[in-house]
Amino acid sequence: MPKVTVHRKAHFNAAHRLYRKDWSDEKNFAVFNKCSNPNYHGHNYELIVSLTGEIDATTGYVYDLGKLKDLIKSEIEECFDHKNLNIEVDEFKELNPTAENICVVTYQKLRKHLPTDLDLKITLYETPRNFVSYSGE
Amino acid sequence: MPKVTVHRKAHFNAAHRLYRKDWSDEKNFAVFNKCSNPNYHGHNYELIVSLTGEIDATTGYVYDLGKLKDLIKSEIEECFDHKNLNIEVDEFKELNPTAENICVVTYQKLRKHLPTDLDLKITLYETPRNFVSYSGE
Amino acid sequence: MPKVTVHRKAHFNAAHRLYRKDWSDEKNFAVFNKCSNPNYHGHNYELIVSLTGEIDATTGYVYDLGKLKDLIKSEIEECFDHKNLNIEVDEFKELNPTAENICVVTYQKLRKHLPTDLDLKITLYETPRNFVSYSGE
Amino acid sequence: MPKVTVHRKAHFNAAHRLYRKDWSDEKNFAVFNKCSNPNYHGHNYELIVSLTGEIDATTGYVYDLGKLKDLIKSEIEECFDHKNLNIEVDEFKELNPTAENICVVTYQKLRKHLPTDLDLKITLYETPRNFVSYSGE
Amino acid sequence: MPKVTVHRKAHFNAAHRLYRKDWSDEKNFAVFNKCSNPNYHGHNYELIVSLTGEIDATTGYVYDLGKLKDLIKSEIEECFDHKNLNIEVDEFKELNPTAENICVVTYQKLRKHLPTDLDLKITLYETPRNFVSYSGE
Amino acid sequence: MPKVTVHRKAHFNAAHRLYRKDWSDEKNFAVFNKCSNPNYHGHNYELIVSLTGEIDATTGYVYDLGKLKDLIKSEIEECFDHKNLNIEVDEFKELNPTAENICVVTYQKLRKHLPTDLDLKITLYETPRNFVSYSGE
Repeated sequence: MPKVTVHRKAHFNAAHRLYRKDWSDEKNFAVFNKCSNPNYHGHNYELIVSLTGEIDATTGYVYDLGKLKDLIKSEIEECFDHKNLNIEVDEFKELNPTAENICVVTYQKLRKHLPTDLDLKITLYETPRNFVSYSGE
Repeated sequence: MPKVTVHRKAHFNAAHRLYRKDWSDEKNFAVFNKCSNPNYHGHNYELIVSLTGEIDATTGYVYDLGKLKDLIKSEIEECFDHKNLNIEVDEFKELNPTAENICVVTYQKLRKHLPTDLDLKITLYETPRNFVSYSGE
Repeated sequence: MPKVTVHRKAHFNAAHRLYRKDWSDEKNFAVFNKCSNPNYHGHNYELIVSLTGEIDATTGYVYDLGKLKDLIKSEIEECFDHKNLNIEVDEFKELNPTAENICVVTYQKLRKHLPTDLDLKITLYETPRNFVSYSGE
Repeated sequence: MPKVTVHRKAHFNAAHRLYRKDWSDEKNFAVFNKCSNPNYHGHNYELIVSLTGEIDATTGYVYDLGKLKDLIKSEIEECFDHKNLNIEVDEFKELNPTAENICVVTYQKLRKHLPTDLDLKITLYETPRNFVSYSGE
Repeated sequence: MPKVTVHRKAHFNAAHRLYRKDWSDEKNFAVFNKCSNPNYHGHNYELIVSLTGEIDATTGYVYDLGKLKDLIKSEIEECFDHKNLNIEVDEFKELNPTAENICVVTYQKLRKHLPTDLDLKITLYETPRNFVSYSGE
Repeated sequence: MPKVTVHRKAHFNAAHRLYRKDWSDEKNFAVFNKCSNPNYHGHNYELIVSLTGEIDATTGYVYDLGKLKDLIKSEIEECFDHKNLNIEVDEFKELNPTAENICVVTYQKLRKHLPTDLDLKITLYETPRNFVSYSGE
């Protein structure tokens, strides 16, 4: 059967700051600039989850996008939406919540709930002009 | 010469329903949910056709996008636009018109009119949040 | 208190055809062109609901957009989404479901559930290039 | 001379929470839901500033959009971008930073720097689906 | 009948420069900055044409958007698309082609072909961040 | 460390014409159609610069997007923005400024300023419907 990629968009809003606990405020500002503001700032994150695999001959689906929507809701939106990533999300308590790291964490959280014969790719927009993507390499 | 991908966007509006003739309405609803509505529903499909190949040294083009626009119009828009895909498009008389299958059929319809040294990829948005892509694998 | 307009976007997918029962297929085609296809076609309708009124000094809200989201869901999305407007929506059994008429019907369905001191405006995108708006005049 | 409206888009990212200091966390959650998260959340705010007035016969401009861009930068972006609105912006120390109130404050901050013969309107997107507008009424 | 506004989007690409023939290059640069480049620069102009009037009870249309599309094509796109506005468009031979003036000229060119009982408004995007609107005042 | 792609969007406005000096106006028109207009036309070019590499364990960045923004500004925007590509940009004095060629030139101009262990890809929108991409092959 043909190998097709299916994509589902989702979004969440969150606060964060970029910094290392073992650096001074000055060093954090030198490296992360205004993104290191100790009082936090935030974003409307737009997320694209992409799954690649063969079309199921019975249904014509690679993966039911309604099921994928529900999975993104339970695994990602409920954990990240309207949250302070640094304070309230376990994965970022010791990991700097850069777009790169949020993208990798999103990949890891979804990967374990998806069939192993489907390839997964995550694209994450932090702003309309800055975005990142990760496919497990 | 450098190998570049050129992309052209197009769109069409159509009605469809997702179902299998050999299943009951109940089973179709269980699998395809409201997409199986026997009275049809519809979408504004957005299409991206992508061609990869070497730049022609004489023109600076990989492929004339005006020519590609015309090809998409004659092969895809005239067949799908303002149509009921299940009833009026031959390819879907026995094939469930999921986004995945529409994407593969679009690929097949265009592939035979394009030079064999150009790679083809189709991306099809069924809604702004659900989309699929296929490159002939 | 300042008078502010709050807007909420929503969407639904539906099938429809434009025609008059008292006209022949030929006349319907002459007036409504391919939109009169007897087998239907469809759209991803994008909806913007706008409410104008004074800011509530206690909450800082004109109207709770979460409540508006729920109202749009129960009154509009549940009635129109994944439906055939001509066959399954009472309001269009005798009324041609042009974008103009869908916009007016949406206004009427929401108006009765909203406080009378708020002005209501509806904007409805039938395609990214064709849209209509209505504010009760 | 013809009366034309000129519009300029800008954006800023910020953290905020919606709450009243004189209410309990429970009451704040009951009214503002997850937007009242004491650890803050955030948005990519998109801003449209609109000025209406007669075209200047000499330049063909209503107002130099380069000058407007600089004004938005110094008065709005430098105050709001990458900030915690509740903690770091004076106007919101006693005022709940709802989209409505941010829109009115933006209006007031810009109004005093603009010629009195130009009408001003502010549109503020808190998310792609929620936005507000204010024109000084 | 309800009074509704119907909108149609179109676009054209053109070159232009902003300047006054009776000013020196220095003065033109001081006022119009890099937009005065004597070698021209260009834009993808996005156009929205809006017509307000009563719904026709027979058709459910305010104005046939297919007819409006054709009118925009013959009156605007064929005159402006892939043109140098300063050199090739009569209206701008003595008039500075600012977004404001292009918007007013577009209004005047369309106004005379449209029924007098319909109100007309033109919105013109020069870039995604700079746009203007005019409704004949 | 995980290998992630970071993307930064930018834009510039420019005039150009497509033609070969060694061809007649008739031949240029036959091949490049209205894009060969000797008086030029123009576009709002949207640019996406994508860098792929391992996340730096210390910062959580693949590459500082603020630094990338500055590099795009100095190497691309300052050279192309509000310019006539054929006349004012050295690279296009003998090279036809098709979207393909602009994309390759952008790649070459940025490549030499970026670390060799990062892969580079350029995507260039000439219009919202026509775009190209190049990754150095």
